[in-house]
Amino acid sequence: MILHGYFRSSAAYRTRIALNLKGVAYEQHAVDLRTGAQRSEAFLKLNPQGLVPALEVTTDSGGAVITQSTAILEWLDETHPEPPLMPTDAFGRAQVRGMIGLIASDIHPLNNLRVLTALRGTFGADQAQIDAWAGGWMVPGFQALSALTQAQGAGWLHGDAPTLADCYLIPQLYSARRFNVDLTPFPALTAIEDRALAHPAFAAAHPDRQPDAD
Amino acid sequence: MILHGYFRSSAAYRTRIALNLKGVAYEQHAVDLRTGAQRSEAFLKLNPQGLVPALEVTTDSGGAVITQSTAILEWLDETHPEPPLMPTDAFGRAQVRGMIGLIASDIHPLNNLRVLTALRGTFGADQAQIDAWAGGWMVPGFQALSALTQAQGAGWLHGDAPTLADCYLIPQLYSARRFNVDLTPFPALTAIEDRALAHPAFAAAHPDRQPDAD
Repeated sequence: MILHGYFRSSAAYRTRIALNLKGVAYEQHAVDLRTGAQRSEAFLKLNPQGLVPALEVTTDSGGAVITQSTAILEWLDETHPEPPLMPTDAFGRAQVRGMIGLIASDIHPLNNLRVLTALRGTFGADQAQIDAWAGGWMVPGFQALSALTQAQGAGWLHGDAPTLADCYLIPQLYSARRFNVDLTPFPALTAIEDRALAHPAFAAAHPDRQPDAD
Repeated sequence: MILHGYFRSSAAYRTRIALNLKGVAYEQHAVDLRTGAQRSEAFLKLNPQGLVPALEVTTDSGGAVITQSTAILEWLDETHPEPPLMPTDAFGRAQVRGMIGLIASDIHPLNNLRVLTALRGTFGADQAQIDAWAGGWMVPGFQALSALTQAQGAGWLHGDAPTLADCYLIPQLYSARRFNVDLTPFPALTAIEDRALAHPAFAAAHPDRQPDAD
């Protein structure tokens, strides 16, 4: 498999964690979002959306590309069942997907690079406004996530082993620190982060440890 | 089942389409986002995130709530298999989830009510800027989606029958019209919309036909 990603992309970081948790070998191709490599003709052929991650895989009918981190993570869990990263019951899976949606739709899209670039360009946002904007979506999201994990978690966001939801949490907390969001009100989440960063699969996926890190 | 929603919410609209496609009976409880009903104590008990939709369901262990439209739709497809709204093969499911992620993470979060309210409040955006902002994310999203469905579709976004991805497309096109986005460059998408609006399950889910529509 070939993962087209960028070391600091939250969605690529999620994908690396899941690949590592599954013990899948993969090659990394860096797409430098700062120089616009995602808009090159070659990359747009792989992903017409021009975003990372994109995972090149082999299917029964040959080579193919999966785009969107959630599609990649669900596919990985379906095709590489061990260790399972989703609960065995439908309601448990719905709970995990509820936490995934909270991060993947209600937090992350509002603080990713292309959106912040647009805020700077369209509304002249300065760095303090950017930090306040990003944090303004993270804080209520983390509050809700804390309530959900209090009901569902036992060491990880849901239950006592990592699930796909944890693959989303850890990159979002990394991003929160970059925007100077105070995480002290969220001890349940940072306890999971401590556990994750001590876990080899999560540790090896950290942005600082990627070949394209600067 | 009880669906807590709001007639104009894109995520609630998705959920109504899927419930109708599955032929599931449900009761609707309206949460008026304009008056802040989603922040009431009673609603926050159901969904600590204070967003619609939230679906009250009955599980083996009693009553429970599922939040986030993607979690609800995947749960519905798992627990009510007929008619199937996902392909039978893992790669096909990954393709459908790729289109879902494109809409649910890269388009819709940037034009929903709370984000546009924040743009008005923080950056003083006027209606022309709001329309340009919303359209600025929809147009490249619809371009990529058109390329994906050209490769995958046969009457619907993926294949020749509705999938979960179509439950996302139709509300997003409804939203595009509200922001005066020109859809003439996307004939593949509007052809699917025509087909959907003639389908009883999609038609009955339209915002104008909900009890709380004004």
